Amino acid sequence: MNRKILGSGNLQIQRFFNLDARAYHEGALSSKVKELLGLVASLVLRCDDCVTYHVLRCVEEGVSDAEFFEAFNVSLVAGGSITIPHLRRAVERLEECRTLEKRHLSRRVYGRR
Amino acid sequence: MNRKILGSGNLQIQRFFNLDARAYHEGALSSKVKELLGLVASLVLRCDDCVTYHVLRCVEEGVSDAEFFEAFNVSLVAGGSITIPHLRRAVERLEECRTLEKRHLSRRVYGRR
Amino acid sequence: MNRKILGSGNLQIQRFFNLDARAYHEGALSSKVKELLGLVASLVLRCDDCVTYHVLRCVEEGVSDAEFFEAFNVSLVAGGSITIPHLRRAVERLEECRTLEKRHLSRRVYGRR
Amino acid sequence: MNRKILGSGNLQIQRFFNLDARAYHEGALSSKVKELLGLVASLVLRCDDCVTYHVLRCVEEGVSDAEFFEAFNVSLVAGGSITIPHLRRAVERLEECRTLEKRHLSRRVYGRR
Amino acid sequence: MNRKILGSGNLQIQRFFNLDARAYHEGALSSKVKELLGLVASLVLRCDDCVTYHVLRCVEEGVSDAEFFEAFNVSLVAGGSITIPHLRRAVERLEECRTLEKRHLSRRVYGRR
Amino acid sequence: MNRKILGSGNLQIQRFFNLDARAYHEGALSSKVKELLGLVASLVLRCDDCVTYHVLRCVEEGVSDAEFFEAFNVSLVAGGSITIPHLRRAVERLEECRTLEKRHLSRRVYGRR
Repeated sequence: MNRKILGSGNLQIQRFFNLDARAYHEGALSSKVKELLGLVASLVLRCDDCVTYHVLRCVEEGVSDAEFFEAFNVSLVAGGSITIPHLRRAVERLEECRTLEKRHLSRRVYGRR
Repeated sequence: MNRKILGSGNLQIQRFFNLDARAYHEGALSSKVKELLGLVASLVLRCDDCVTYHVLRCVEEGVSDAEFFEAFNVSLVAGGSITIPHLRRAVERLEECRTLEKRHLSRRVYGRR
Repeated sequence: MNRKILGSGNLQIQRFFNLDARAYHEGALSSKVKELLGLVASLVLRCDDCVTYHVLRCVEEGVSDAEFFEAFNVSLVAGGSITIPHLRRAVERLEECRTLEKRHLSRRVYGRR
Repeated sequence: MNRKILGSGNLQIQRFFNLDARAYHEGALSSKVKELLGLVASLVLRCDDCVTYHVLRCVEEGVSDAEFFEAFNVSLVAGGSITIPHLRRAVERLEECRTLEKRHLSRRVYGRR
Repeated sequence: MNRKILGSGNLQIQRFFNLDARAYHEGALSSKVKELLGLVASLVLRCDDCVTYHVLRCVEEGVSDAEFFEAFNVSLVAGGSITIPHLRRAVERLEECRTLEKRHLSRRVYGRR
Repeated sequence: MNRKILGSGNLQIQRFFNLDARAYHEGALSSKVKELLGLVASLVLRCDDCVTYHVLRCVEEGVSDAEFFEAFNVSLVAGGSITIPHLRRAVERLEECRTLEKRHLSRRVYGRR
């Protein structure tokens, strides 16, 4: 769908998408920290699609489960119980990612036999 | 004012304040990263008092100006131009902190002469 | 899913869930009034899962249809037409609860024949 | 200022103000409960002017301090620590109301001597 | 579902629905401009059902694709990247409307053969 | 203060400010309509500084009082009574602008005698 938005010919929207992507690039702060910032922002603003995206990116950046749950806790305390349904879905996404990682890993270790 | 809230005898509110404070303690994630998470949450939820608090705490945790502005940028892109007035006040608070730091430093260096 | 969150080993998240549950216990205000407060908070913050939960709890606490619609009206006026889709789903949930109550009742009255 | 808005000749805005006032009138739910609903809605939506208004009205409806703090607690848990600055100002408003009540009472008891 | 809400016998909710409908009637501002205002309000408040409704109404009022994307851009810049998932769905809705329009048109042009 | 933010050397923030300014430039939609979109977005997101800015810009674009109050009404109905304090301040700002316009006009008409 992003393709359709970007294909609209509206240059400013394209530039916004560009800025959005760059905001999470490695800089003075690492990509990992920036993705955690994006995750917490998405949770307190209660946007499931954004949460899913940042959970995936955090997994790619090597965020551990303990780190995830501390970031979830900051979101929960700052944003209140109203964030709980989004937190549940975030944990569900995280579990899916971890299952995929394990499968991928065991395939790499045992796959060629 | 927190004292008045905590003096109300409502135990659950006291426990909430407790949880709120602990969410930012050193753990799997450092206090510095957690304060940055709190800062971004406060900016996208547009709460000036919370922003002020986390700017101060970030300064104490040694967040550099470049790091601050990258966190500001994540907040701005995620939360939109509606966050700009809050960003302005965050920058103002940061400047005040930096001025105090410099004074404090020069007093330590030159003060005893 | 709550089990997964609570099973994460993050004690502070568990404590938050505890505080959240207790906030609605009978006290100076009745559970009924507190559930109505939770319902209105969920509607103006526009969280469907939270609305569903508090509709169920309000039904259990004996909230009448007239009382429900007055609470819906406060939410609608305070939160604006942006709450209407959530209000629609709240009314749908309420109807489901009322249908279940009737079935349950007629089974208790006629069931043993 | 409401007078200026209502004096604008825009009939629909006048009707909205009417609906807003009526939402809190005694009905299936008491005015007291409805004002508590309004207070919690205002706190989780973080509107200080609205909080002030509903604190005053709740005091007029005879809400006790214990009841106030339980409603504050529901707001805090549902809306998160981002509501704390608004909670502080709510407690401040409540204290002012209580001081005025005491003065008024002691004037009624001792005033005529 | 609106029928159920309106059938509840709560007069004030009915009046609110009335005011909501009238807010978009032709007046000093055209219906077209008012529907664009409703679209942007729905996007920045992130309500998909409301966005769908206003996209349909904007199409009926003759809003062009270029106009749509400029209104989307205002929403995106004001509301931030958190609005992107809603923007995506808005573009999807718009495409569906345009497809229906084309079919309808080609049926009118070629249909009678 | 914007100068300080822009002087921070963070290029992406500068680009965001650029995009924000351009979103309201004349295009398929007129600047007048776009400023009205910005005004309604600011009111429903309840940002006083943004409301003030867009009221000024709308006055410059020749928005009439009747048009203003219809846009206010859309904001009020969509965003609910929680927007009323912001609406009050918007009307206050509008009055100040109109007073300045009249003074400026009478000076132009009578000033040179």
